[in-house]
Amino acid sequence: MTRPTISGTPDAVPAIEIHEILEGADLELMDRWLAQADPVVIAEELARLARERRAIPFRLLAKDRALEVFELLDPSVQQELLEGLREINVRQLFEEMDPDDRARLTEEMPATVARRLLAGLSPAERRLTSTLLGYPPDSAGRLMSPEVANLRAGMTAREAIERLRQIGRSAETIYALPVTDDRRRLVGVLGLRDLVLADPSASVGDLMDPDVYSARVDSDQEGVARLMGEADLLALPIVDHEDRLVGIVTVDDAMEVLEEEETEDVARAAGADPLGRPYLATSVLQLARSRVIWLIVFIGAGAVTVNVMAVFESTLAQVVALAFFVPLVIGTAGNTGAQSATTITRAMAVGEVRLEDLPPVVGREVTTGLLLGAVLAVVASVPIALLVGRDIGIVVGLTLLVACTLASLIGSALPLVAKRVGLDPAVMSVPLITALIDASGLVVYFLIATVVLAL
Amino acid sequence: MTRPTISGTPDAVPAIEIHEILEGADLELMDRWLAQADPVVIAEELARLARERRAIPFRLLAKDRALEVFELLDPSVQQELLEGLREINVRQLFEEMDPDDRARLTEEMPATVARRLLAGLSPAERRLTSTLLGYPPDSAGRLMSPEVANLRAGMTAREAIERLRQIGRSAETIYALPVTDDRRRLVGVLGLRDLVLADPSASVGDLMDPDVYSARVDSDQEGVARLMGEADLLALPIVDHEDRLVGIVTVDDAMEVLEEEETEDVARAAGADPLGRPYLATSVLQLARSRVIWLIVFIGAGAVTVNVMAVFESTLAQVVALAFFVPLVIGTAGNTGAQSATTITRAMAVGEVRLEDLPPVVGREVTTGLLLGAVLAVVASVPIALLVGRDIGIVVGLTLLVACTLASLIGSALPLVAKRVGLDPAVMSVPLITALIDASGLVVYFLIATVVLAL
Repeated sequence: MTRPTISGTPDAVPAIEIHEILEGADLELMDRWLAQADPVVIAEELARLARERRAIPFRLLAKDRALEVFELLDPSVQQELLEGLREINVRQLFEEMDPDDRARLTEEMPATVARRLLAGLSPAERRLTSTLLGYPPDSAGRLMSPEVANLRAGMTAREAIERLRQIGRSAETIYALPVTDDRRRLVGVLGLRDLVLADPSASVGDLMDPDVYSARVDSDQEGVARLMGEADLLALPIVDHEDRLVGIVTVDDAMEVLEEEETEDVARAAGADPLGRPYLATSVLQLARSRVIWLIVFIGAGAVTVNVMAVFESTLAQVVALAFFVPLVIGTAGNTGAQSATTITRAMAVGEVRLEDLPPVVGREVTTGLLLGAVLAVVASVPIALLVGRDIGIVVGLTLLVACTLASLIGSALPLVAKRVGLDPAVMSVPLITALIDASGLVVYFLIATVVLAL
Repeated sequence: MTRPTISGTPDAVPAIEIHEILEGADLELMDRWLAQADPVVIAEELARLARERRAIPFRLLAKDRALEVFELLDPSVQQELLEGLREINVRQLFEEMDPDDRARLTEEMPATVARRLLAGLSPAERRLTSTLLGYPPDSAGRLMSPEVANLRAGMTAREAIERLRQIGRSAETIYALPVTDDRRRLVGVLGLRDLVLADPSASVGDLMDPDVYSARVDSDQEGVARLMGEADLLALPIVDHEDRLVGIVTVDDAMEVLEEEETEDVARAAGADPLGRPYLATSVLQLARSRVIWLIVFIGAGAVTVNVMAVFESTLAQVVALAFFVPLVIGTAGNTGAQSATTITRAMAVGEVRLEDLPPVVGREVTTGLLLGAVLAVVASVPIALLVGRDIGIVVGLTLLVACTLASLIGSALPLVAKRVGLDPAVMSVPLITALIDASGLVVYFLIATVVLAL
């Protein structure tokens, strides 16, 4: 029963060994055989494997070969393979695999197989199963529904409505109707409103909008949701890398994604891990766990301030009153920096500020910081000069001027720099930025004090 | 031409005087006459006034009388009145009025007049004009579109689709179709999907969902948007206080409201006024203005720390090293409190935590703060004890334990308390809470130092 291998290599493996290879744990060997074997042979061998053993060799197949093999399988075996891929223990097997091995299994599934695999699953099951499809976490592929009602350009409006009457009940939405060609490639979108209001004899191809928004299965969910918000879309077709329709994301899912993302951003800005569940459903231990690591990081960063203060011990010992203004000075500089950081991080999150805006944005924030520093210097130094002493008023005033400018620089630049080096800007949380501002603000304070007070 | 007044008071005012009253600036006199005059007389007098003078007396009419008068007007006068109400100078007149006087003009407009007034205006014009309708700022009335496609329960599906073909192009949405009775009261909603997929002879009354989500014109926009997100609604009918349909809010507008609200919350949390425009379209002066008042407030709150430090001057003078740990101690407590405040404020914004949850929420946060304080006390005090001194390590450790617990109490309680007394919880911004934590943390620090170091 062995046939010549496609690559024409001479070492045709005996069938008995193939069976062992496909059942075994040596993924590299399996991969090598699958890469060169004839799709017909692969289909035969898969059919001979126990149901639960089929998932891994099938997922190791390159995308185009996977589709070919799938179509060669007997419908009953196709069904069993799909059921196997859906099973919880197969999913667990995948989750538990070595990340390197798993990465080898994560090439995109062919659109036809992916859609059949996902069909009929609940959203929760779908989210679990989509690991198997090679869609990265937080990608559109994990958010979409595969139950999409698509039309053909050649249909009339009457035929399209007739088709909707047949398939419309099971579709996730029929308000946005993707139009596909005979290779399932997306060629347009037609809104149900336009379809209903159209002349029944008009053709879908004429009615549809050919300039259509769509997203790839591996697009980031937040980007997809923001696009839908900006373009006022009720649904967005999701395509694979060959532009074939695999699913659709609806606006209610997009809203949920945005709400989750906001909650995450808010948590991260305050230096805590997102809870990922409602507040009252979170135990005290989980609350503490979401915060403790970050607090330890911040206390580490804050240790710098201890060293700065220690360096200026003699200055402090000479004028104890200098210590009185330490919380006020670093607090004010920290607040100024936090305002900059928060504004910039938010503007980036909603897409108002991009990486290339770094120089103008930092320039504006530094100017703003200088202005604010000047106002605050006057507000703070006058009462201090009158109540405590002229010199210390000058020291605090000058420090606020310099430290607020510096704080705006740090607060605006760090989120942008984090993004440039590929980190989430939210990693530059307010407490982390404040810790840096505290340390630099203290240096400024004591240096100015040394000069002004001639210490 | 004078007719008996409705109230039957004997002092029927001569027509010539009425004209003067309605043209004059004495709103109280005008109001008194309008409250008792016969609607037919009012309609006649309104018609005799110059176009631009009609708006104010009309808006002074009580709602039911306004509708009666409006319907008595000649269609051409109706049209002129509507145009007058739309005019920018009339709007300005209203905006510039004394708030007390304006409040008297702000009873809800009858649904029929409101819809005709708003129809044909751009969303921006609509937002301006809705001041005139008595809809409060940030209310659903200002967000809705009056161009709503409504159905009657007695129609068949075929008739409903026929009606949509006639009026559907001008409607804001036809995906959610409010069903109204003959008094324009909302009795149900039918989704276009169900209408299209239904048997053409089925009745709208049978197809519609009678348990329908709706909101009042004066509902808060954010609440409306969150309801739409939670209930996965594409559109929400908006009704007046008599349950009559006046407009519809669509999901794209809801998403915009949510995005704006998030941006506002983020700005407020950092202690800045929301910009209300894209970041790069905001001038440096506007940026500074949005932040400076709050920074001055925070510097005022921060002045307390100066006094606390001054109170403990002799302690500081004896052990200068105590000053070294001031930024670290208050920074860590501040971060812990900020985590609590941020988590609670967000949980309230998305509706996970309500006012009545105050005791359990504060209890959980205080326990979490105690746990975190214990961990941080160990993390910080061991290296300090080894590198600086045993006693100072104990002081810092004990302070972190107490101050973090206290910080969680302040951070979680203040937003809830703010809400209870009717303030926006976001007023309790992180910098304001931190200022309070700084002051109380310092007191704790120096008290513990005095005891442990026997000063």
